[in-house]
Amino acid sequence: MYKLYDFLPSGNGYKVRLLLTQLQIPFTRIEVNILNNESRTPEFLTKNPNGKIPVLEISPNQYLTESNAILFYLSQNTSYFPNNNFEQAQVMQWLFFEQYSHEPNIATSRYWISILGKEREYKQQLKQKKILGYAALNVMEKHLQTQDFFVGKTYTIADIGLYAYTHVAEEGGFSLTEFSYIKRWLNRIENQPRYIGISNF
Amino acid sequence: MYKLYDFLPSGNGYKVRLLLTQLQIPFTRIEVNILNNESRTPEFLTKNPNGKIPVLEISPNQYLTESNAILFYLSQNTSYFPNNNFEQAQVMQWLFFEQYSHEPNIATSRYWISILGKEREYKQQLKQKKILGYAALNVMEKHLQTQDFFVGKTYTIADIGLYAYTHVAEEGGFSLTEFSYIKRWLNRIENQPRYIGISNF
Repeated sequence: MYKLYDFLPSGNGYKVRLLLTQLQIPFTRIEVNILNNESRTPEFLTKNPNGKIPVLEISPNQYLTESNAILFYLSQNTSYFPNNNFEQAQVMQWLFFEQYSHEPNIATSRYWISILGKEREYKQQLKQKKILGYAALNVMEKHLQTQDFFVGKTYTIADIGLYAYTHVAEEGGFSLTEFSYIKRWLNRIENQPRYIGISNF
Repeated sequence: MYKLYDFLPSGNGYKVRLLLTQLQIPFTRIEVNILNNESRTPEFLTKNPNGKIPVLEISPNQYLTESNAILFYLSQNTSYFPNNNFEQAQVMQWLFFEQYSHEPNIATSRYWISILGKEREYKQQLKQKKILGYAALNVMEKHLQTQDFFVGKTYTIADIGLYAYTHVAEEGGFSLTEFSYIKRWLNRIENQPRYIGISNF
């Protein structure tokens, strides 16, 4: 059985929990409290030398890290990953967009404000994150004006990857009020079979 | 014929140039000077609403963005992408590591110091980038102690992705002197068939 090293408030961990649940794959969840540096212990670093969750233990001593690489692995030959080459590459494009242009701004703002409670301490850095985070949301909003899902006509891991931190963007100080297409898309995700919420464990 | 919207000093652009050349796929390179905001014009934003290079034009009005997604697309069914599922996922893992833990620190430092010439202006931010960039280099060094290439036993797009900004890390103020495994790996990459340098166009 898969073991998932995870931290409940983490959107990156949630992506993997959500897909495993939707695929009906049983797994054991192991909570790693990153606030106590539990992802930096010598033992954890043997699993992921980069010191981050989530980590998927596929079999003893066989680990996979990076949430979106785990989504890629689990979704192969399922309906959550497209069949054709170009659509597969588009899924990867949106997952790289997520990790480069979205997560470092929206997830990091949420981490500082709602998880660490240090909005004041990070005030200066949050200004720049706000500009870049809204830029990412605008790219998503524009794309969703003509598409129900990010790639092709169905729900894929591109949607899971982007949903994770978008649906809690307000915890990072981002208002979704003006993003009507994003809001309808969030709703579409929440109506997928076997959907679970971020705290549902 | 493919068109590549590119910026010569960009490591992200270079990844794609290098793979296309090694695959012996002809392409037209179109220089987009990001320093003059040429990637933010209304016309360019129709190709990539996120305003970044590289962009691969596969056919008229069919664009792919995100350097590592382009590597994924071009390498399918070639020796530059592994056959088995787990190794494919490991390639993606290293490419996400590159975009999240490596590029924002090493490439951004190089951009501020060597491309914009604004080391002094970014002095404060560079301190944090230095810590995180060296952390990424340490993860790579450790991995290369037991592996000639990042995944499996052969050269893949994981190596191309990580090579692009590692081999110019010194332009970002990172010394590779102590990284003997990385240095040997850089040399291994430079000895691959049809290798070209970053300014070779």
